[in-house]
Amino acid sequence: MKLLVTQENLNKALHHTAKVAMGRNSLPILNNILISAEINQLKLVATNLEIAITHYIGAKISTPGSITLPARLMQEFIGNLPSGPIDLSLSGQKMTITSGKYSSSINGIGAEEYPELPKIASDNELGIDAKELKKALSQVVFSASSDDSRPVLTAVLMNIADHKITLASTDSYRLSEKIIKTDSNLSAKLLIPASAVADLLRIIGDSEETVTIKYDDNQVCFAVGESELITRQVDGEYPNYQALVPKEFKVVASVDKDELLRITKVTSLFARESAGSITLTVDELTKELKINSLASQVGENSASTAATIKGEGGFVTINSRYLIEALSAFSSKNIDFCFNDKLAPCVISSAKEPGYIHIIMPLKS
Amino acid sequence: MKLLVTQENLNKALHHTAKVAMGRNSLPILNNILISAEINQLKLVATNLEIAITHYIGAKISTPGSITLPARLMQEFIGNLPSGPIDLSLSGQKMTITSGKYSSSINGIGAEEYPELPKIASDNELGIDAKELKKALSQVVFSASSDDSRPVLTAVLMNIADHKITLASTDSYRLSEKIIKTDSNLSAKLLIPASAVADLLRIIGDSEETVTIKYDDNQVCFAVGESELITRQVDGEYPNYQALVPKEFKVVASVDKDELLRITKVTSLFARESAGSITLTVDELTKELKINSLASQVGENSASTAATIKGEGGFVTINSRYLIEALSAFSSKNIDFCFNDKLAPCVISSAKEPGYIHIIMPLKS
Repeated sequence: MKLLVTQENLNKALHHTAKVAMGRNSLPILNNILISAEINQLKLVATNLEIAITHYIGAKISTPGSITLPARLMQEFIGNLPSGPIDLSLSGQKMTITSGKYSSSINGIGAEEYPELPKIASDNELGIDAKELKKALSQVVFSASSDDSRPVLTAVLMNIADHKITLASTDSYRLSEKIIKTDSNLSAKLLIPASAVADLLRIIGDSEETVTIKYDDNQVCFAVGESELITRQVDGEYPNYQALVPKEFKVVASVDKDELLRITKVTSLFARESAGSITLTVDELTKELKINSLASQVGENSASTAATIKGEGGFVTINSRYLIEALSAFSSKNIDFCFNDKLAPCVISSAKEPGYIHIIMPLKS
Repeated sequence: MKLLVTQENLNKALHHTAKVAMGRNSLPILNNILISAEINQLKLVATNLEIAITHYIGAKISTPGSITLPARLMQEFIGNLPSGPIDLSLSGQKMTITSGKYSSSINGIGAEEYPELPKIASDNELGIDAKELKKALSQVVFSASSDDSRPVLTAVLMNIADHKITLASTDSYRLSEKIIKTDSNLSAKLLIPASAVADLLRIIGDSEETVTIKYDDNQVCFAVGESELITRQVDGEYPNYQALVPKEFKVVASVDKDELLRITKVTSLFARESAGSITLTVDELTKELKINSLASQVGENSASTAATIKGEGGFVTINSRYLIEALSAFSSKNIDFCFNDKLAPCVISSAKEPGYIHIIMPLKS
């Protein structure tokens, strides 16, 4: 194995792949990156057996071959080299890397010991605009559960049906749903581990291309540009959350999103002793949305923002962190905060962001 | 106690003081800030019994008085308020803070329970340009020891004598010394805890004024702008390090500082198993300074940079982290790396930065 590659390309490939090999891995070889010199290109692969990321870069290959090298060391080393050409030359299991006045040799482990990558056993395939998918995933992934006791809730649902893709996640205290359109005639319910979504967002990066999605019963593959991510699906049946989404509201308050975010953050400082409980009151008389913390040992806070109110007034008590995360997922200037009574789910939506809703269950205080 | 103050001023005062009250404090009241409304000004004080910081801001005082309030909550709360006037009004031990549509009440602890601040029992006083002192402290503080077994080495020495101020610190593996001039006729050896220097640098900030230094046998006070920091001195006799500083060198290599820093960082990645050991070789023939890591399980690295060599060639083995930190303290483009033989101290200096030297003891490998 002998080849010439640019520092920029190799650094980018390591940026896209190495992280997967840097977690807590059961097998030592999973801390390595598989590097294969093929015809005119270099392939880098990292896997933690849950997901695998492959990235291809152009390279001048003199002698094909493959080896696995420590991911963290490679990423730090290549990232610190000056830009320009890098020579890679393998002798036994020792890779000599030369760039200008830098020369290093890194001890690898034979490629034959690297686990075989999963393959998609189906022709199901659809494309989504990279920017649209990235935004949609960012808007739903944060409300997935991090608690493994109900594994299905650690997934982001990707429900493909009727020329629509519905992305959803819920930890049973809150729920995000985003609907985007598709030309595809396919129909499928895919359960993507939320933990894979961070890696997926990284490889999508600022791409303006199309993300190609392939899937079978057990796995989903996302391909964009020179990168490809395969993840296993989460087992189980996703709960039928649709019944939970209220369709009509007694109270609808339209407010400036940034202003609501700011008063929520300030009030949350006083809500630490009460596990983040804050009470939102829609006041018809003053035309305001008010936020109060409960009185605690440190003190209490109340703040308000102007609101355009449809329907009647009312109040509801929710977790301030959930509200902060939900508001941060919207990009429009105004949002609607809607609810029926103090025990029913609150819905946050925006006329400027159709297809996206966020639901927060109230606290029974 | 009742007053009006701007968010900008109160936020700045909290930025300068609150951190001292946010460490691990033995007494609960030390997590609070003492706030005193005096004539036309508000005084904020935080102390951890080692150091105390006082900051004054202008305020419209209606009723004088004082109270202590939780430092962390105050800093986060005031920092998140919009700019503009803030009303503070004390009733019993409850402080009501109002700003536009925000209103909060914070429970305090009576000011009478706050510890009394130390005072300087002497008229010794000198002034140093704030920028000059900030740079000098930054250049020496990092080589102070963090090991309490020899307390005197956890101090930065400030030796005032013969119209010079010599700042020095050493952890016995390396040493920094910076000499600045002064008009003062005073003579004193002050031992400032290195841990106080971070706070001092924060209150100096971007000030272009003069820092006034007052001291007695036990304490030192630094006053700049509206802030004042008093610290206890470290007990003990500072070692006479001067004898250790070599005056002549067999090997002097002048190199580009950024280039040396880069090759040191890259090589240090390969030196983790050997506790950071790297060998620097000055090669008269190739006119290069070369850096090598020792061969280890992960591999090894060598890199070089062009050098102007005075004297002969040679090599020395040192800790890569010490070299990285030392080089980062220089601001000039070129530095001189000087040594005598592989067991004698290395000296780093720069013709463009007179008065500053850094010494690293070699590793006996």
